[in-house]
Amino acid sequence: MSYSSNHLSNSISLNVKGTHIIDEKDDSQLVSTNDIALPNQKPLNHVGIDIGGSLTKIVYSSKLENGGKLNFESIETSKVEQIIDRLKEVLKLHYGFDPDSDSGEQNEVIIMATGGGAFKYNQLLLDEIKCPVVKTDEMQSLIVGLDFLITRIPDEIFTIDEHFSYNSVQCLEDPNIYPYLLVNIGSGVSMIKVTANNTFTRVSGSSVGGGTLWGLLSILTAANDFDEMLALAQDGNNENVDLLVGDIYGRGYNKIGLSADAIAASMGKAFKKVTADVKIPEDASAEEIRARRLERLLAFDQKDIAKSLLFAISNNIGQIAFLEAQRCGISKIFFAGSYIRNHPQTVKTLSYAVKFWSNNQQSAYFLRHEGYLGSLGAFLSKRASDDAQ
Amino acid sequence: MSYSSNHLSNSISLNVKGTHIIDEKDDSQLVSTNDIALPNQKPLNHVGIDIGGSLTKIVYSSKLENGGKLNFESIETSKVEQIIDRLKEVLKLHYGFDPDSDSGEQNEVIIMATGGGAFKYNQLLLDEIKCPVVKTDEMQSLIVGLDFLITRIPDEIFTIDEHFSYNSVQCLEDPNIYPYLLVNIGSGVSMIKVTANNTFTRVSGSSVGGGTLWGLLSILTAANDFDEMLALAQDGNNENVDLLVGDIYGRGYNKIGLSADAIAASMGKAFKKVTADVKIPEDASAEEIRARRLERLLAFDQKDIAKSLLFAISNNIGQIAFLEAQRCGISKIFFAGSYIRNHPQTVKTLSYAVKFWSNNQQSAYFLRHEGYLGSLGAFLSKRASDDAQ
Repeated sequence: MSYSSNHLSNSISLNVKGTHIIDEKDDSQLVSTNDIALPNQKPLNHVGIDIGGSLTKIVYSSKLENGGKLNFESIETSKVEQIIDRLKEVLKLHYGFDPDSDSGEQNEVIIMATGGGAFKYNQLLLDEIKCPVVKTDEMQSLIVGLDFLITRIPDEIFTIDEHFSYNSVQCLEDPNIYPYLLVNIGSGVSMIKVTANNTFTRVSGSSVGGGTLWGLLSILTAANDFDEMLALAQDGNNENVDLLVGDIYGRGYNKIGLSADAIAASMGKAFKKVTADVKIPEDASAEEIRARRLERLLAFDQKDIAKSLLFAISNNIGQIAFLEAQRCGISKIFFAGSYIRNHPQTVKTLSYAVKFWSNNQQSAYFLRHEGYLGSLGAFLSKRASDDAQ
Repeated sequence: MSYSSNHLSNSISLNVKGTHIIDEKDDSQLVSTNDIALPNQKPLNHVGIDIGGSLTKIVYSSKLENGGKLNFESIETSKVEQIIDRLKEVLKLHYGFDPDSDSGEQNEVIIMATGGGAFKYNQLLLDEIKCPVVKTDEMQSLIVGLDFLITRIPDEIFTIDEHFSYNSVQCLEDPNIYPYLLVNIGSGVSMIKVTANNTFTRVSGSSVGGGTLWGLLSILTAANDFDEMLALAQDGNNENVDLLVGDIYGRGYNKIGLSADAIAASMGKAFKKVTADVKIPEDASAEEIRARRLERLLAFDQKDIAKSLLFAISNNIGQIAFLEAQRCGISKIFFAGSYIRNHPQTVKTLSYAVKFWSNNQQSAYFLRHEGYLGSLGAFLSKRASDDAQ
């Protein structure tokens, strides 16, 4: 494989004195997450937007009694009109700029955009929002956003223990934080080694990621979106479809050092059951084949399959992340990306995998704003020269 | 994780002078593979059998004009009567022992048995074959069989290039062969570090293996067995269901150092298509849900899914094997187990994965008798003291 190494151009620096995550939820927002107070920073004149394949994430600044705050919102990318309407609303309310007004006396505003959709929707943004759009590199934005969150924002980072409880980790504003590994799980998985402030290399990846889980579960279950899939997994019992070590060796065998409850083969019970119960003869009619294939699909509880595959893929990513960190001589692993969605079981499985494979020597770190690395990075990537564009 | 390290008890040593793989196929056998001639070794009085979850493998010795040979056969484990009949036939033809005869003047014969079924079918073997059955440890048998094949049998090992052509590797009868990593892919994956003749440790594994591929494909396709699944994969086009790097970034983007044809997300095209084309409303009737779920299942060509998942899982195993070999400071990786079945695309994908991830520094090694490691190991594990049992 080949590598790329990048130094980022200077980005804006915010005054983070007194910054903290605001622990209230604003139910009027489309999708809410916890905003970040910046008591010593005046609101800025730009917006960050990350237009991903499924979700569009928006970061914007607004006034607080003291200083300002950063706001985080996300909308499904397919709902383009809703995105445009929300952007217009935000600019009108918080930036003193009304894209639909003809008045010449308006503030100047800039949209900093990243993600695949930044190219696809560039013209639409220009036409509708009527202000400059500056595109930022996707991976650079990711790292800028991550670096800011982990080095500047108290209580941003957390680890999770086996009882699902969050342990907040204080911000890592010390030079020893480097190197660290960012495991970004979207449709695919990217593993990025960060060796210094804004210096990074993509070291590895995996094609078995969110796209694989969502793709398989969209065929194997009746779920219509990620959240429905996760809800199914929450209630499933993977032991109905997974082959456990105990299923193979019985409860007594411990020669290979694995507990009888360990998963020997994910989905390992399915083949035997299907081929025993639902044979499809070679000379079956098209009608008959359809009926049998449906029978095979319905031979399992979709919840059990959802849990099995969520475990399999999360554990697999955790294992590769641990091995890659070992290979690169890195001890800190941060997980982020749209796969995680702060879902307790996903976070727990990734965390457990790192602990298991590292023999309890390493921990997985997670972020409260994990879905917003790219949009926040785009927001932070604004340079003075962008104003002139 | 915990580890186990094992020294094997001494096993029999065969005279391998002049040994070679016989390149004829005997079509009268149930399942045929290439037998191994042992011109300087007299036939022995025992049989090796590995009763696995799906396949039972038998190794027995017979006479040749000069010396003897080792015969390799396999029968589906579910066909128990066929296994017993074949064993009786082999013993009658080649061992001078007829289990159904009352004559006292018969040769002594021993069955050396391994695999999960060695316990389950122990009594049946005793009742039907009427000779002693000695059970051998599964993992030890695997390693004994492997060590014999790679250090004693010329032309046993091969590598494969990108044009599917076999490159025979001469037998590795030198002490530098150690350490090597055995990646045994059955329902699950075991990775075993072998540091000296018959000294080994299980260092890692993965639950994403053959059981996962066969389990998913038994639900997602109309195939009834592994070979039908592999035949489907052979004709499929994974680009219809996988998300390629080029699908995300277009053809021009090369920042992350991946070619546009690389797979970014296995099955990564399925979610969007399914959720766009076949929504399942919350208030759908049971009837309607079944119809929609069948529609989702039929939204894709089963061949494309078979190929996508064969690629995904083979590549994933290859990646973990490479990383695990790196972590253990090992450069030689042998792949074996019932997942491989000497299927060209599987062998090619595993091989490609090791080359890709190691930056062309490592090769994957395969074995012509890869399905027979356990049964051969059981055969070779016979000690003089077993005769007395």
